Amino acid sequence: MREQYHEQLDVVRDELVTMTQKVAAAVTRASKSLLDADLQAAESVIASDVDIDELADRIENQCLELIALQAPVAGELRIMVGALRMSATLERMGDLAEHVAQIGRHRYPDHAVPEPLAPSIREMGDLAARLAYELGDIIDKVDVEHALRIEVEDDRMDELHRELLLTMLAPEWTYGVETAIDLSMINRFYERFADHAVSVARRIVHQATGQRVERIEQN
Amino acid sequence: MREQYHEQLDVVRDELVTMTQKVAAAVTRASKSLLDADLQAAESVIASDVDIDELADRIENQCLELIALQAPVAGELRIMVGALRMSATLERMGDLAEHVAQIGRHRYPDHAVPEPLAPSIREMGDLAARLAYELGDIIDKVDVEHALRIEVEDDRMDELHRELLLTMLAPEWTYGVETAIDLSMINRFYERFADHAVSVARRIVHQATGQRVERIEQN
Repeated sequence: MREQYHEQLDVVRDELVTMTQKVAAAVTRASKSLLDADLQAAESVIASDVDIDELADRIENQCLELIALQAPVAGELRIMVGALRMSATLERMGDLAEHVAQIGRHRYPDHAVPEPLAPSIREMGDLAARLAYELGDIIDKVDVEHALRIEVEDDRMDELHRELLLTMLAPEWTYGVETAIDLSMINRFYERFADHAVSVARRIVHQATGQRVERIEQN
Repeated sequence: MREQYHEQLDVVRDELVTMTQKVAAAVTRASKSLLDADLQAAESVIASDVDIDELADRIENQCLELIALQAPVAGELRIMVGALRMSATLERMGDLAEHVAQIGRHRYPDHAVPEPLAPSIREMGDLAARLAYELGDIIDKVDVEHALRIEVEDDRMDELHRELLLTMLAPEWTYGVETAIDLSMINRFYERFADHAVSVARRIVHQATGQRVERIEQN
């Protein structure tokens, strides 16, 4: 019984890793939809978000069944609660990728991002995808050191977020209100995506060490 | 044992109702912070969000303990999973109220909302608060009919959201990029708040009838 139980926990962990990969792929394609005005990329992110949602539902059901059937002890319960919350957070990261893609689709055939700003958005998109892929490794290996490094990478996202905001507010801004609104949304979506990645990484640290890294805002 | 179990479920339900009231109060004060440039209102929303978060954590722990200790049958498990998700959604509604208040605080002593747009924002804020209060009743009485009416009220929020967007994109827009960015965020926060209210109402319908109202996007 207990052995089967640990096997099922392994299954849940593998599914969380799969989720990080799907989320990373989604945000990569979402960025492509923006930067290349690639309608097909946008559509594919939007269509495949349902897979991520279903995987989250499956993980939730598995965790709850395990909790209901196996009467876990405190440490085990913490792991399962952690998995529940991580899958919910990864689901929201997938939704944010979808929101980015929706802006790409909405602007098509135009580009949502003015040419001079493309490098910043590209860096944000690449960073977001990298963070999601790194989460996969962190979850798989319960790698606390790597989890702590995620914070540093998120600092760069915050910097890019601030810079873009300042660019839009500068008197030299010539791209109008509509582009500013789109970009402020895109800017926010990438920043939240990275914040969620940080919160998943912190949860791994908490799970592995019992230490809680200071709570951050996450929506 | 079973009797105690049902008592604990009642406690969880009462706490969810308390959460709806706290969230409704938060969004009311957040709107006030915007419309009256009321710094104190903004600060109080931001300071009290931690209470909402703690209540969500408490509900989560209670549900998980009940699941772990009582080996619930399928119908009971559905109720507890519902409570878990509702508390997570209400927590996010509280966060959205906090985001609105942050914009109010950031703009203080200026008004974030230009005078001619105040009536629209007031209507959005009032509607958001009303939806949250209604959720309290719906959860308390498991009122399916009322839950279904929430959808209709949300239609009005969507209309207000679209109108405000169109106003900002019209050539007559004279309030500049910064105000447009702030307003597009405020606009989004209220709209998401209402979407979350709809998703909680749908969950009540699902719980009470076993029927799932069509899934909506929710972030």
